[in-house]
Formats: sequence, structure tokens, C-alpha cells
Amino acid sequence: MSLIDRLDACARFTPENYRPLIVAGRTLGRVDHAFAATLAGFGDVFSVRDNAVEILPGLDTPDTRTAAVAGVLARLRDDGLFPGWRGEHYPVSESFYAAPLLTVERATVPRFGTMGYGVHLNGYVVRDGGLHMWVGKRSMKKPTGPGKLDQVVAGGQPVGLSVRDNLMKECAEEAGMPDDLARRAVPVGTVSYLTERDEGLRHDVLFNYDVELPADFEPVPTDGEVDAFYLWPIGDVVRRIRETDDFKFNAALVIIDFAVRHGVLDPDDPEYIDITEAIRVGRFSPARVR
Amino acid sequence: MSLIDRLDACARFTPENYRPLIVAGRTLGRVDHAFAATLAGFGDVFSVRDNAVEILPGLDTPDTRTAAVAGVLARLRDDGLFPGWRGEHYPVSESFYAAPLLTVERATVPRFGTMGYGVHLNGYVVRDGGLHMWVGKRSMKKPTGPGKLDQVVAGGQPVGLSVRDNLMKECAEEAGMPDDLARRAVPVGTVSYLTERDEGLRHDVLFNYDVELPADFEPVPTDGEVDAFYLWPIGDVVRRIRETDDFKFNAALVIIDFAVRHGVLDPDDPEYIDITEAIRVGRFSPARVR
Repeated sequence: MSLIDRLDACARFTPENYRPLIVAGRTLGRVDHAFAATLAGFGDVFSVRDNAVEILPGLDTPDTRTAAVAGVLARLRDDGLFPGWRGEHYPVSESFYAAPLLTVERATVPRFGTMGYGVHLNGYVVRDGGLHMWVGKRSMKKPTGPGKLDQVVAGGQPVGLSVRDNLMKECAEEAGMPDDLARRAVPVGTVSYLTERDEGLRHDVLFNYDVELPADFEPVPTDGEVDAFYLWPIGDVVRRIRETDDFKFNAALVIIDFAVRHGVLDPDDPEYIDITEAIRVGRFSPARVR
Repeated sequence: MSLIDRLDACARFTPENYRPLIVAGRTLGRVDHAFAATLAGFGDVFSVRDNAVEILPGLDTPDTRTAAVAGVLARLRDDGLFPGWRGEHYPVSESFYAAPLLTVERATVPRFGTMGYGVHLNGYVVRDGGLHMWVGKRSMKKPTGPGKLDQVVAGGQPVGLSVRDNLMKECAEEAGMPDDLARRAVPVGTVSYLTERDEGLRHDVLFNYDVELPADFEPVPTDGEVDAFYLWPIGDVVRRIRETDDFKFNAALVIIDFAVRHGVLDPDDPEYIDITEAIRVGRFSPARVR
């Protein structure tokens, strides 16, 4: 395996397997044909055609759309269609900064192929002149990536919270990181991907942050989402990403981006350009559905 | 103007204006129709068809291709077709790390639309807790971007030199930077673009480096390529990129990438995702010609 394989895992997408999801005249997601067939049973909410799934235009406000879709999803949930139901609503909108056209239960986002957003924090320590990185082991109870390795702090981006405030909240909840330390986190860009996972189509933009942590700080699992934290030399982290499947697919992407930005990879390495070009915007320009 | 406009300037490309350049059966560049018509006058070297320009397959070694094409270019140079002739050969190959299939005079690369490579160094200083950046003003005698603002060190990547060695050489030549300082430069990724400029189609990958410079270091123009250096707060640099056309198009791209990586831009700014997504791989996946 190579780092390129890990980036390829963030770009597994077969366009023919999906039809567009249309909301208020705009294409905002992708629905696979099986789920489209399921939604065809709810003709009072969805118009399902060969080339599109549309939320009925008569549902013409965010509130009416949200309520109608929630009714359908509650029925399907009872049929066991959405393992890992979260009880959190995620926005469906034209862009991250636009007002939502509706909101849907988080666990159903990959079924609709609408965009998701998250914050990921690389926590690193400079020791003996070398970079070390804090890595979290996800709880076996997480609905996605149970037991996988992850950033020291990572979380979904809910409605109604700024990216920075969400990061601060996750730092406290997931790693017991005091505010004065979390405030030192620096935004360092985004990564995005469009890729098929067990839970459906993941089409996410992650806001990445770096924070240099003092040698005497130790993250503490506080909310049950992380089982343990490890501090490893960055070379060991990158090697583990290359040689094993231990890291969650998107955590691997975030760390490869970190490795590039911090000079861990070498421009004279024949994989360098392929890696740097594949990190962002993947291979399918996922920043826009269209 | 916004930073997005500067990134758009790195993605001005109309596919219909070009036909593929084929070398040894591989598409390695793009030739505009006017230059294709010119090359049609050299039927012993080029086969010019409606849908392609091909170096004749009978020219079946790098040396024979290079010599035959050089003969054509010398004739055209006499006709004044290539202002800014450099006397430097650039490789034409399937990838940066592959052996060249031929080499061509640097000033003709944008006419063939083959890929170019460069090294760019962000030289920054941390002063009073704030980031400052050294900026160079290009000599009025430069064939591209005369008088424009640029990185403290930037240069094309010639054949037969590692990226790191090229950076070291440029640091000494362009800014009088001692080796022990240049060695501290950290590779931080690539940016790439495919865009129409006066000189033709620029399809480049730039290897970017950052170096934190001590407060008492001052770059010195040594080889006549740079007229002056300025040290400006990063906020002023970014504002100048946003509000003026003073920076060379690709230097602006490199600095916007720097600004993202160093937390100068804010994820809660409604332009943030568009900027971070547009920086790399542009809008036309330029990493690969095909």
C-alpha cells in the first residue's frame, strides 16, 4: 500500500450508481438507485424519476421540507434502514455559508449524498527537534469507524455554531483540552472528499486546524467517544497509514495533508506531486455537487 | 476584487482553443490553433491534423525529437515568435519524475502547453507576534511579469537538478541567502495551474517552501532578477493581492496558499471554502494533461 491508496479511498465514486437529489430546483445531493426506489414509496414527499429524485416543489419552505422528510425517515428508521441514528440535524444547503433549505438527521446524510462538514485538529508536539502527533482511538461504540485511529479531536459541524466555536467545544468534550490551549489552534485549510462508504456516499469538507501542544499536556477521553490517546513520532504515524488500515479514511487524509504542510514528505520523492495534487478537491471536484 | 478573482486568474482556459500535442503516442501538451497552423509548415517534424499536433513517430528517440524540434524553433525564433528566449532547455515528459521524451527551449513551453515546474519560497519573519513576509520586486528586464511582486525566491525547475538543490541555488543567486539559512526551508506542498497568459498556456506545478527568517537577515538582490525586497505584515500583503494586480499571478496563488496554511484566513469567512478548494488542482485538474 502507498499513501496514494489512502487518498484513492477518499475518491471511490461511480457516477452511474446515483441520480441527483433536487431541492428547490437545485441539485444538492446524490441518491443511489436502491434508496431512490425506497423513496418512491413516499409520493407525497418525493418525486422519483429515472434521472432524478426531487423533494416535491409544493413543499416550499425549509420547515415544511424538514418536517415532511423527517416523517419519511422516521418510518424508514423503524424498518432498520439507518443504523447509528444520532438525533442530530444536519443542514442541506447550497453552500456551507448559505441558509439551509432543509435539515435531516445526521445518519441519513450519506443516503442523500448531501454535503457534510467537520472540524479536525492535528495536535502535535515538538520533542528532541522531531514532530510527534497525538492520535485518538475511536470508541468501539461509534457508528462510523469504530475502533479506528483518528485526530486528537474531530467532530461533525452542526447547524448554528461557528467553526471556531465548534472546535472549542469538541476540544473540551473529546480530549479535555482547556480553552486557553484550544484557542492556540490555527486554521490550516480544508480537505474534501466524495467517496462511497458502508454508510452511503460521504461528500464532506473538513476544516483542519493544527495546534502545537506543550510536552506536559495529555489529552483525556472525557465523553466516551475516544478510548485512548497515543503520542507517536510523525514518521511512525505516516508509516502506519501507509502500511495498515488502522486509521479512519478521512483521518488518514487529514494527516497526509499535515505531513505535506510540515515537510515530512520530500518533493524529490516520485509520489510527491500525485500526493499533493490528490489531497484537495480529490479527483472529482467535490466542492460542488454539480 | 477578491482573492477568488486571483485564483480565477490561475484557471483561465478554453479547451476549444487548443488541440492536443502528441509525443511518442502520449498527449503531453496543448497547442493553440494559430501555432498549430505555423507548425504545419514543418511537415518533416510535425503532423498537424484538425484534432491533434503530433511529433512524427519516426523521430523515435529523445535526442532526435529534441534536435528536430530545436531546428524548427530556431527558424521561428528568427521570425520573432518567441520573445524572452532563455537559452535554457525544459523537459517534456509524462511526469515530473519520468525521463524526458524531449527537451525544448524554456520560452517555447507555453506555446506547446507542456508542463513546467518551479520552486517558490515564502520567506517570513515573526515580529511582535505577527507574521511578516519578504516580497521581491521583479526586474523590469524579466521576460514574464516584469516589475511584478513575487516570492523572496522563485525560479524555474531545470533538468538534472533535484528540487532541493535547485531551491538552494536560487536562494543564493536571487536573494543572497546563505546555505545554512536556505537549508531551514521546509517543503509545504505544491500548487498548480492551467491558465492562458500572454506568453501562451501556462501549465505548471510549483513546489512551495516556507522558511522562517531571523529578524536580522535581509535578502540582497544579487543576480539582477530582483530590483528590491520589502518586508510587509502578512495582512498588508494579502490586502494588496486582493486590491491590486501588483503581484505576479502565480506568486499571488502561492501567498494565498501560505495565508490559508498559517491561519491568516478565517474558516467562518464565507469565501473560505471556495478559496481553499480553488488553490490546488485549480478548476481543471491540471496535474494531468489528459
